[in-house]
Amino acid sequence: MLKLDFHPSGRHFLQIPGPSPVPDRILRAMSLPTIDHRGPEFGALGLEVLRKVREVFKTQQSVVIYPASGTGAWEAALVNTLSPGDRVLMFETGHFATLWEKMARRLGLEPEFLGLPGYEGWRNGVQADMIERRLKEDSGHTIKAVCVVHNETSTGVTSDIAAVRRAIDAARHPALLLVDTISGLACADYQHDGWGVDVTISGSQKGLMLPPGISFNAVSDKAVEASRRAQLPKSFWAWDEILEMNKSGYWPYTPNTNLLYGLNEALDMLLDEGLEQVFARHQRWAAGVRTAVECWGLEVQCQDPSVYSPVLTGVVMPEGIDADAVRSLIYKRFDLSLGTGLGKAKGKMFRIGHLGDCNDLTLIATLGGCEAGLKLSGAKLQGSGVLAALDYFAAHPLATAS
Amino acid sequence: MLKLDFHPSGRHFLQIPGPSPVPDRILRAMSLPTIDHRGPEFGALGLEVLRKVREVFKTQQSVVIYPASGTGAWEAALVNTLSPGDRVLMFETGHFATLWEKMARRLGLEPEFLGLPGYEGWRNGVQADMIERRLKEDSGHTIKAVCVVHNETSTGVTSDIAAVRRAIDAARHPALLLVDTISGLACADYQHDGWGVDVTISGSQKGLMLPPGISFNAVSDKAVEASRRAQLPKSFWAWDEILEMNKSGYWPYTPNTNLLYGLNEALDMLLDEGLEQVFARHQRWAAGVRTAVECWGLEVQCQDPSVYSPVLTGVVMPEGIDADAVRSLIYKRFDLSLGTGLGKAKGKMFRIGHLGDCNDLTLIATLGGCEAGLKLSGAKLQGSGVLAALDYFAAHPLATAS
Amino acid sequence: MLKLDFHPSGRHFLQIPGPSPVPDRILRAMSLPTIDHRGPEFGALGLEVLRKVREVFKTQQSVVIYPASGTGAWEAALVNTLSPGDRVLMFETGHFATLWEKMARRLGLEPEFLGLPGYEGWRNGVQADMIERRLKEDSGHTIKAVCVVHNETSTGVTSDIAAVRRAIDAARHPALLLVDTISGLACADYQHDGWGVDVTISGSQKGLMLPPGISFNAVSDKAVEASRRAQLPKSFWAWDEILEMNKSGYWPYTPNTNLLYGLNEALDMLLDEGLEQVFARHQRWAAGVRTAVECWGLEVQCQDPSVYSPVLTGVVMPEGIDADAVRSLIYKRFDLSLGTGLGKAKGKMFRIGHLGDCNDLTLIATLGGCEAGLKLSGAKLQGSGVLAALDYFAAHPLATAS
Amino acid sequence: MLKLDFHPSGRHFLQIPGPSPVPDRILRAMSLPTIDHRGPEFGALGLEVLRKVREVFKTQQSVVIYPASGTGAWEAALVNTLSPGDRVLMFETGHFATLWEKMARRLGLEPEFLGLPGYEGWRNGVQADMIERRLKEDSGHTIKAVCVVHNETSTGVTSDIAAVRRAIDAARHPALLLVDTISGLACADYQHDGWGVDVTISGSQKGLMLPPGISFNAVSDKAVEASRRAQLPKSFWAWDEILEMNKSGYWPYTPNTNLLYGLNEALDMLLDEGLEQVFARHQRWAAGVRTAVECWGLEVQCQDPSVYSPVLTGVVMPEGIDADAVRSLIYKRFDLSLGTGLGKAKGKMFRIGHLGDCNDLTLIATLGGCEAGLKLSGAKLQGSGVLAALDYFAAHPLATAS
Repeated sequence: MLKLDFHPSGRHFLQIPGPSPVPDRILRAMSLPTIDHRGPEFGALGLEVLRKVREVFKTQQSVVIYPASGTGAWEAALVNTLSPGDRVLMFETGHFATLWEKMARRLGLEPEFLGLPGYEGWRNGVQADMIERRLKEDSGHTIKAVCVVHNETSTGVTSDIAAVRRAIDAARHPALLLVDTISGLACADYQHDGWGVDVTISGSQKGLMLPPGISFNAVSDKAVEASRRAQLPKSFWAWDEILEMNKSGYWPYTPNTNLLYGLNEALDMLLDEGLEQVFARHQRWAAGVRTAVECWGLEVQCQDPSVYSPVLTGVVMPEGIDADAVRSLIYKRFDLSLGTGLGKAKGKMFRIGHLGDCNDLTLIATLGGCEAGLKLSGAKLQGSGVLAALDYFAAHPLATAS
Repeated sequence: MLKLDFHPSGRHFLQIPGPSPVPDRILRAMSLPTIDHRGPEFGALGLEVLRKVREVFKTQQSVVIYPASGTGAWEAALVNTLSPGDRVLMFETGHFATLWEKMARRLGLEPEFLGLPGYEGWRNGVQADMIERRLKEDSGHTIKAVCVVHNETSTGVTSDIAAVRRAIDAARHPALLLVDTISGLACADYQHDGWGVDVTISGSQKGLMLPPGISFNAVSDKAVEASRRAQLPKSFWAWDEILEMNKSGYWPYTPNTNLLYGLNEALDMLLDEGLEQVFARHQRWAAGVRTAVECWGLEVQCQDPSVYSPVLTGVVMPEGIDADAVRSLIYKRFDLSLGTGLGKAKGKMFRIGHLGDCNDLTLIATLGGCEAGLKLSGAKLQGSGVLAALDYFAAHPLATAS
Repeated sequence: MLKLDFHPSGRHFLQIPGPSPVPDRILRAMSLPTIDHRGPEFGALGLEVLRKVREVFKTQQSVVIYPASGTGAWEAALVNTLSPGDRVLMFETGHFATLWEKMARRLGLEPEFLGLPGYEGWRNGVQADMIERRLKEDSGHTIKAVCVVHNETSTGVTSDIAAVRRAIDAARHPALLLVDTISGLACADYQHDGWGVDVTISGSQKGLMLPPGISFNAVSDKAVEASRRAQLPKSFWAWDEILEMNKSGYWPYTPNTNLLYGLNEALDMLLDEGLEQVFARHQRWAAGVRTAVECWGLEVQCQDPSVYSPVLTGVVMPEGIDADAVRSLIYKRFDLSLGTGLGKAKGKMFRIGHLGDCNDLTLIATLGGCEAGLKLSGAKLQGSGVLAALDYFAAHPLATAS
Repeated sequence: MLKLDFHPSGRHFLQIPGPSPVPDRILRAMSLPTIDHRGPEFGALGLEVLRKVREVFKTQQSVVIYPASGTGAWEAALVNTLSPGDRVLMFETGHFATLWEKMARRLGLEPEFLGLPGYEGWRNGVQADMIERRLKEDSGHTIKAVCVVHNETSTGVTSDIAAVRRAIDAARHPALLLVDTISGLACADYQHDGWGVDVTISGSQKGLMLPPGISFNAVSDKAVEASRRAQLPKSFWAWDEILEMNKSGYWPYTPNTNLLYGLNEALDMLLDEGLEQVFARHQRWAAGVRTAVECWGLEVQCQDPSVYSPVLTGVVMPEGIDADAVRSLIYKRFDLSLGTGLGKAKGKMFRIGHLGDCNDLTLIATLGGCEAGLKLSGAKLQGSGVLAALDYFAAHPLATAS
């Protein structure tokens, strides 16, 4: 029989950029008895969760909740709004943008993949001017959607979605705007309505601090309108029946009850703290972690300070050091999980998640493990990052909302 | 703030035919800290779960686990094996067969829906001879798949899948056999390999005693072969990448970690008890519940004793009694949830689930609530079903495997 | 390794008169991380719990909480108020009264044990007139305390404490009144101040629905005054330091933190429901259970209807039936635990608890198990008690406070 | 309604020297449903726990488990073995030795309190030679017991109990040896039989990693013999009935069921890891923490390196810095609880616990919080202790038992 408790003493430090550490409070909520998904209690739960989740997306329009993980919500966004052969404009910000592009191709769409030359796209955000240029060229409006990743989890870059919106508007182009903020939501500011996004894709296991298994499509009325004509086959992901049933707090098929308990608890936690306070908390952590990286004399993966991610930080390895070997050593010696370099970044960098159920000392522990692991791996560090971060946190107390 | 504890005193009796009551042991396993889905611990968990789940499907072939609810696994079975416009032969056993047919149509397939005339199909099992006849007519082999429901959750009928296999073989027809045993698995005997099934669809929230959120496709080599040529768009549901990654215990996208903890625990519970013992337990409960229904002088929804379901029992209302009014009264007065009549059966019957974390006295309580509720609703009962069931359970102790 | 999950399927029915079934909500509260018992959070918790617990004892005076089980609170009541060789008047209502008398003797007191002749005391309540008579004889006031059990857990008798108070007053006797309501509190009405009780002893594992491990002394100012002169050695149990520290929400030694979390949750549940509603709930259950016993043609252990316990019911066995053999059979066949006959009642009766996390159907299940077990044991029953109770519950819905 | 979740984000760091952080695995075990304390399952649990707990005390004699916190076990040791007016020899190692002495006096014993002059006793261990000298003087054997604290929680000193045993033997004195290892057990090596201890007192909330609420008396046959003649009143604490009932796995009164579940789990964890490995783990942590303190240029409270505690480290404040002000600042800014200076040490030092559910990075986080807090409080530190400890842990991997 497999033992699920893997570590002899102490809590594992899960500092990957999601799934994030789940607060005990949420784990406890998830352990409530499962209820009848067609009973009156469930309707009350459904309406409550659907109401509160809109606040987190900053939308007055609808949010569809799927009993499926985030990748499914990518598929949902595409199959609800598009037809076979439709051209979509995507932007290569990193590994997840690349996977989404691959999915679009696999589903029979015609993605066009913009990006900076070479490896540059993986160290910068979405270039709204390139999108604007391309849309202006598309005078026949063959491009049906623009797809971008808000917080690129593979690199630690949080792109400027408002700028993408302005680019589309400037081009007077009717394309839908589809945005993946799976790892950005509830860590970094996000405005579904304010930024005129048509479909926002998100998931449970990042800023919402839940285990994986729930995902989202926040949808604009324009997107709903498009879904009525879209021709890609859809059934499980189809918005129409879900939106209809959601009016009374139910779903057309069995929802993920216990994760909805967790979602309800997570929403209470976030809204009680206040979203702006939540964002400030993550910005401060990110600044502390970058201070450490700089003090080590290493580079942050993201080269553009205006799009540093508040959710995670990519740490570029010095010459001759394999990031995965460092990660493995840190895992074994210090019971700390870090994010691997994905795709083009494999071996070049590792990623520190600073989201979910964290606090200053969790990050000090994390940076301590990184520093010791880098040194044990032979990296020459210029200074002590953990000390620099400690000084940063000490000097910058988190202002609390009055 | 919504209170998730809805009942002032005592445990709610959740006797719907799924989601079933989740054992505390599983809820506790699910509350373990989420781990890195790319770390070494996860690989060990993945391999263990994939190995044990095969035993429950009685297969040596592959089982695909989706981080999505059961309806998704229906879609997965169709989009992996079929192409737009493909003809599929389905059999109307009840509401869920009907929903699956609707899904097939929505996805662009051409379902042909066999069934007994009138309401008869909803009170009997799959008629293998009708399938055999239809397949023999299809000399051009335009039918690509036969789709049947093993345990029809809306009626309480457990069809004979081996007979369907024999029908296909007798017709010497190459169609794939796709079987939904979402509510049958781990309650009623099921043999993926022994019955020559190509895709078996199942879910977590019934016999596996988990909350909803995980679903399955057990796949034959023939089905995998078919998936290489099938043309329906697929990405999230595509078997190929999952089967490839599963070799090392991982998934191509974020799996449902905490539900996998629960699945691991559920599999240990089932395999430790022994599957045949588990089946015998459910058969005995079902017999006790039917004894009660007969003693009341009411009809069981299933009219063919050879296909009585061990998972649930549909109770047909006497003239003039609305099943949903009875259910609502029972819910309010006795804190007991029963399954509603679905589709064509709406108002005509209710369903008693006897699966999941139950025992004899749970069912006595359930039958007590039903009996009192029926009487309060004005039904004239011939005798006391709860007493009849109590006598049945007393007279028929469960034989334990030596 | 011992497996703590003893039952293969379904929840065990724990219908002993305590420890009572613990609501999941309380078990979850108890699983919060342990905190610093000298930190600011603990002080807030301590003050909150001390405030709310007073409401349950219906007192404005002090309640001392011990990190020890109920038997310890018996000892605490004696050693705080009495001196070696002190005479105390106790009343034999059953096994627990007898154990308390034995404890008093062991601690060096001189208990005088009043009671009805023969076995009668075990089937009736405290006889206040006998106490009054004895106190009037004690013109020298050598008796320092009167000790009675409010709800005698071994028999199912809830004595009239107000009558005992009146008896003491009528005798114009200065003796302290010490009352054990370990199993009565939060099930049956209890008024520490209203009835002029000097020390009320209670525990966590009955009406408070907690696991065992916390116990109480509610103390009158007169009792506190007496404790300053009492000469029995005391340290752990001494009120003085606890009362002093409690002013700021702390304890002089390490309190039982996680059980205090559970106590806080239990108090919220009870006070939110309303104590009078809680009492009505238990009275109704007790009436239903007695209806069943009468219908079987068996006797209730308590012979005086004015002191029937709302907490538990003792069921007297017919001639020739050994209660413990019946209990053992019911345990094995129906996964139901009943209370054994204790002391003089051994083998003659068993006890059904109707307290803690119960509802109507829990009790129907319990009575079903009893009925089947009695019949399997050869008892001739006059009628079906489970049906009678079901009818009773159906005919008597619980009135809810407006 | 009081919210028991006090911290908005992340886990509180509970680094006081007990109650120690409780592993999730134990909290989960404690959330199992409460069972009948007189039923067959309980007997199996009782026997299992009593068997395994002996291994942790390294005894073949009996261990008495109380449903009460540790202070109660102190009282139990005294009242079981001694008579009013008995002379006992105690040694002042710190605050807890002082409290025990106060208890002995309060219970009517005649404690004689040995100690080094001035504050020295609070910075050193038990001086066995002083005990030997005193016992030799006591030719009339008026001293009935020697009482010492093994691990003094208020100072971080782990005295040499074997030396005390040798001292008693050298004096050929019949006094009983009573040892408090409440905070030492399961962190530091302890040998009840090997060191000839008569009563060992311990508790649940330190090395056993449980919440408070259970405590222990490991008793020698000589102590049991003494208890038959001892005259202090005893009932709740009396060994005789408990030892008798324990033979079949039960207790004479309601035991602390859910904490016994936790104890069973804790014992499995400790024995699976191996006690010597557990001790080595704590020694290594203590060495790392002392390295930090030395690097800061501060003093460790314990002045004798041969008795450094593996459980906790007292950190002496520099001139002009109030330890409690530092602790309070660290608590507010870094969500970290440290132990206060107790009694004579108040304000002079704080205590870092390195026990319970910890690992290297937990301690790095803790030392980080201490370092930042000391600096924010104006302390001039010579170097970075957190870096020194990190280097220590990196350079000294924990050897694992083959």
